Amino acid sequence: MNYQAIIEEIYTKVKNGENLGEVATYIPELGNVHPDRFGVHLTTIQNSHSFVGDSDVRFSIQSIAKVLILALAYKIEGAKIWERVGVEPSGSPFNSLIQLEYDFGIPRNPFINAGAIVICDILVSLLPNPKQMLLDFIREASNIPHIDYSQTIVESEKSMGFRNAALVNFLKSFGNIHNDIEVVLDFYYSICSIEMTCKELSKTFLFFANNGRNSFSKEPILTVSQTKRINAIMQTCGFYDEAGEFSYRVGLPGKSGVGGGIIAVHPNQYAIAVWSPKLNKKGNSYRGMKFLELFTTKTELSIF
Amino acid sequence: MNYQAIIEEIYTKVKNGENLGEVATYIPELGNVHPDRFGVHLTTIQNSHSFVGDSDVRFSIQSIAKVLILALAYKIEGAKIWERVGVEPSGSPFNSLIQLEYDFGIPRNPFINAGAIVICDILVSLLPNPKQMLLDFIREASNIPHIDYSQTIVESEKSMGFRNAALVNFLKSFGNIHNDIEVVLDFYYSICSIEMTCKELSKTFLFFANNGRNSFSKEPILTVSQTKRINAIMQTCGFYDEAGEFSYRVGLPGKSGVGGGIIAVHPNQYAIAVWSPKLNKKGNSYRGMKFLELFTTKTELSIF
Amino acid sequence: MNYQAIIEEIYTKVKNGENLGEVATYIPELGNVHPDRFGVHLTTIQNSHSFVGDSDVRFSIQSIAKVLILALAYKIEGAKIWERVGVEPSGSPFNSLIQLEYDFGIPRNPFINAGAIVICDILVSLLPNPKQMLLDFIREASNIPHIDYSQTIVESEKSMGFRNAALVNFLKSFGNIHNDIEVVLDFYYSICSIEMTCKELSKTFLFFANNGRNSFSKEPILTVSQTKRINAIMQTCGFYDEAGEFSYRVGLPGKSGVGGGIIAVHPNQYAIAVWSPKLNKKGNSYRGMKFLELFTTKTELSIF
Amino acid sequence: MNYQAIIEEIYTKVKNGENLGEVATYIPELGNVHPDRFGVHLTTIQNSHSFVGDSDVRFSIQSIAKVLILALAYKIEGAKIWERVGVEPSGSPFNSLIQLEYDFGIPRNPFINAGAIVICDILVSLLPNPKQMLLDFIREASNIPHIDYSQTIVESEKSMGFRNAALVNFLKSFGNIHNDIEVVLDFYYSICSIEMTCKELSKTFLFFANNGRNSFSKEPILTVSQTKRINAIMQTCGFYDEAGEFSYRVGLPGKSGVGGGIIAVHPNQYAIAVWSPKLNKKGNSYRGMKFLELFTTKTELSIF
Repeated sequence: MNYQAIIEEIYTKVKNGENLGEVATYIPELGNVHPDRFGVHLTTIQNSHSFVGDSDVRFSIQSIAKVLILALAYKIEGAKIWERVGVEPSGSPFNSLIQLEYDFGIPRNPFINAGAIVICDILVSLLPNPKQMLLDFIREASNIPHIDYSQTIVESEKSMGFRNAALVNFLKSFGNIHNDIEVVLDFYYSICSIEMTCKELSKTFLFFANNGRNSFSKEPILTVSQTKRINAIMQTCGFYDEAGEFSYRVGLPGKSGVGGGIIAVHPNQYAIAVWSPKLNKKGNSYRGMKFLELFTTKTELSIF
Repeated sequence: MNYQAIIEEIYTKVKNGENLGEVATYIPELGNVHPDRFGVHLTTIQNSHSFVGDSDVRFSIQSIAKVLILALAYKIEGAKIWERVGVEPSGSPFNSLIQLEYDFGIPRNPFINAGAIVICDILVSLLPNPKQMLLDFIREASNIPHIDYSQTIVESEKSMGFRNAALVNFLKSFGNIHNDIEVVLDFYYSICSIEMTCKELSKTFLFFANNGRNSFSKEPILTVSQTKRINAIMQTCGFYDEAGEFSYRVGLPGKSGVGGGIIAVHPNQYAIAVWSPKLNKKGNSYRGMKFLELFTTKTELSIF
Repeated sequence: MNYQAIIEEIYTKVKNGENLGEVATYIPELGNVHPDRFGVHLTTIQNSHSFVGDSDVRFSIQSIAKVLILALAYKIEGAKIWERVGVEPSGSPFNSLIQLEYDFGIPRNPFINAGAIVICDILVSLLPNPKQMLLDFIREASNIPHIDYSQTIVESEKSMGFRNAALVNFLKSFGNIHNDIEVVLDFYYSICSIEMTCKELSKTFLFFANNGRNSFSKEPILTVSQTKRINAIMQTCGFYDEAGEFSYRVGLPGKSGVGGGIIAVHPNQYAIAVWSPKLNKKGNSYRGMKFLELFTTKTELSIF
Repeated sequence: MNYQAIIEEIYTKVKNGENLGEVATYIPELGNVHPDRFGVHLTTIQNSHSFVGDSDVRFSIQSIAKVLILALAYKIEGAKIWERVGVEPSGSPFNSLIQLEYDFGIPRNPFINAGAIVICDILVSLLPNPKQMLLDFIREASNIPHIDYSQTIVESEKSMGFRNAALVNFLKSFGNIHNDIEVVLDFYYSICSIEMTCKELSKTFLFFANNGRNSFSKEPILTVSQTKRINAIMQTCGFYDEAGEFSYRVGLPGKSGVGGGIIAVHPNQYAIAVWSPKLNKKGNSYRGMKFLELFTTKTELSIF
């Protein structure tokens, strides 16, 4: 299939349409991004590339990184992680404390903030230097040596992070945080600060489309079964309160971030990254959602 | 792939394991079923059949029928139905009233009771004789002329159905029921009373695996896009509060019923029906879940 | 104390101020009332009367009647009624279903709709002719023989009463309704339809200020202890989601209705009825609340 | 009335009955108290005293101190405090985060933890040395110069206080905490650590029974109106999820603490303190509740 032509066609269509929603502004670093930025990059498991627009501009991947820490924790610790975090869609906004109280401190899934914080705590327990080892993991998976945290964003998030501080204290009151709260929060804010371009993002996530195997080195990163299972969680939980809508319209596993990025994975085919900073009311990229809906409709390549 | 051999192997393995959980007993007709009943039937889109155990014994498909009324309403009315019911997973038990109050009478998805009741109301508005026309639709889709309602079960459900009566009145208080409450409830209880064997069930759902096309007549029942979208909803919402777990373990779109039946669909491959009446705490067949998990692990054929 | 002078002074003050809020319109009978109607009547336990404005115009007492059915049920059945309804403030809007689901069908108190419906069910079980016997009880307590139901309002409520029908079905699904749903609802709508003037209302409730004793006949209607306990429930639960506010500002036990009436009781002193149809956002009479706050501030006669 | 005789009679009766429930053990200082401790002290506004049992043993008054910080904040800041905290009963367990999320960071009342933390923040903003000035306020109100904080308890609470740390961060995320989190929490834990005997407690709260006036010096501490209003809040919100039950059974404004203490106030009569460490399921002293119910039944002196 000529992905390049299709991507360009849909890109033009979406760019000519409205650009609704709002850029996230809770930290200045996100608010400073130009609202009309728009890029797409698709990488197939045969390592061919299609791209358009601002696909080489770096942005804050934010919550998309939650999939990467999940992959690392699952790889090291195996199914034991599911004793501390569930796999059910949350059915409520992404940072709700209500569900936690109801479920005695077990977050419903690893992609709500509380769940990702628990995964951070697991990695802090397992690894001597979790920040460095996560970077190593991502760099090896993507074959891109310079992917890094943004210390500016880390500091900015910390200064505004009362709700996440509430979450981690609340989790600790239920016994579901084992390490020092400051250490866990520092790691959590670091993972949220990772910056990538669309190209880098699609390369990083390619192993999820390739049964867990690195497309370049052919080395396994996750087992086939682990890969399928994380894809399944992306399918049901990747888009906060709009996971069903994304599944319904796009039909692929994926994950979004408040920086305006979306990654979607078509098993055995490709990983596609889209970036446009304006967010709809549910916190997902307005143009990103639109692009992916039209793209899978056009290619008739949803997993369903 | 030799489905017959795999099915037999896993069937034996599951049958030799524990049979935990409880048969639903809220109406006597369900409680009277022998708890060790266990059948499987897989039909490929090439119309080849693999089966084992009680695959020819008829059982009450219950909530599985919600997918069929959704298909009929979506076929006739198109995307307008989504103004009256959502596509998000519910995140709470299947008959909860809480969410409805929160969302002003719009059920989160068509597979919770409230959502299915709204779909019934839509069909009652659209069709002169909804009960007969639904049967016609199912009989044509499955090529099985004798599929029918069980009037005994309808009466039994009605006599115990205070919670569903509460739901429909509550929906009507929000203006999301347009017809007479008694008529809507009668239709709803009818669709829940449909009886099928595993064979009939897998044949009925085969068009969801075949891009909406009848495998026998080759006639389209739904469009490709409609089919993919209903499959997506089954994936995210098909198993009450355990949709994520099913997606994680089995990796296929599917739907369960309190009669102990489960249907799962592998797009472009097959539809598989499993039946075992004992339910786990979330209301899904204990052995059915186990069988399908082992089956997709063994065949490595999840959609992810 | 010269109640007449104080009542006139505050009445003038409130009448000259704003008349905010909205008249209830969910049934036409309530919506047709003139929004500037405003009356007050105070009766002391020595049977002296003070009054002003439209104190002799009859209005629909609505939820205020819930106190009267509670009194009758408590008188006949004693403390056993608390097995089926609680005495805690609800902390949520008056017709919420959420709490019921949480508490397995036990309404938090007898003044939310669900609780009053359970009290109706108790009376239907206890009495051969509950509608007549409730009238007898009220007529005797008040010494007013012509107090009656409004059949027009009963019919109107029934035709709009989907939410109450939901409630009673929901309660029955938990086993907390023992009689036929139609009979219970008919009784419930009847009690809500009772019409009184301010004068009649203050005379009817006078025994709550008089340790349970009829001020005319001196006969006991409730025991001292029963009276104190119903007063305590009025204090904590009498004003839907604004019970704390009323307690804070007015400092007396009381009960409001969506017809715009409020009754307040000062133990060992008086019962005062206020009526003004425009309701604040919490569903309580705007001018009624204001009047009573100024009245108890002026007289320095709260119970605290 | 011969309070001494009545207190002794009821004390004996309750002491001979069961002592159910559990001593709070979340910090060791509470868990070390002997479960059979039981004391009562009543002080009338004429400064006469009646007492029995362990009325001179000091215990941790815990949440009872929330009334005292409310009094101080209300005295200094007036009605402005109600912009940041409500007066409605909470209808859910005492440390719930659910309601806060629902109400955008405004705690329902000043006696749930979140509300008391907001009051602490208000005092930290108003006072140069809030800890010392609160002690001064209490010492002057009670005429007891040695009332003090327990630093051991402060440290113990801090080391276990993840849930309160969650609360204060959550409140801050809504903008309802204006000062440094550590400072506010330190003050909050200090006020919870105050220790008193039953005698000291009843003397301290006597001004709530005396229209806000110190019974010894005759000096006003609060205005009449402020006093009535705090009494009203104690009436509707003083006992967590059991406020209605206390109001129903005891019929007086009051406040309990997890140390097993209860203070109750009879306006224009007396303040009575009861202490027994074993708590019922709602977190209120088992024997304390029982004693006060029997006491007000016997004396027929509820406010209703």
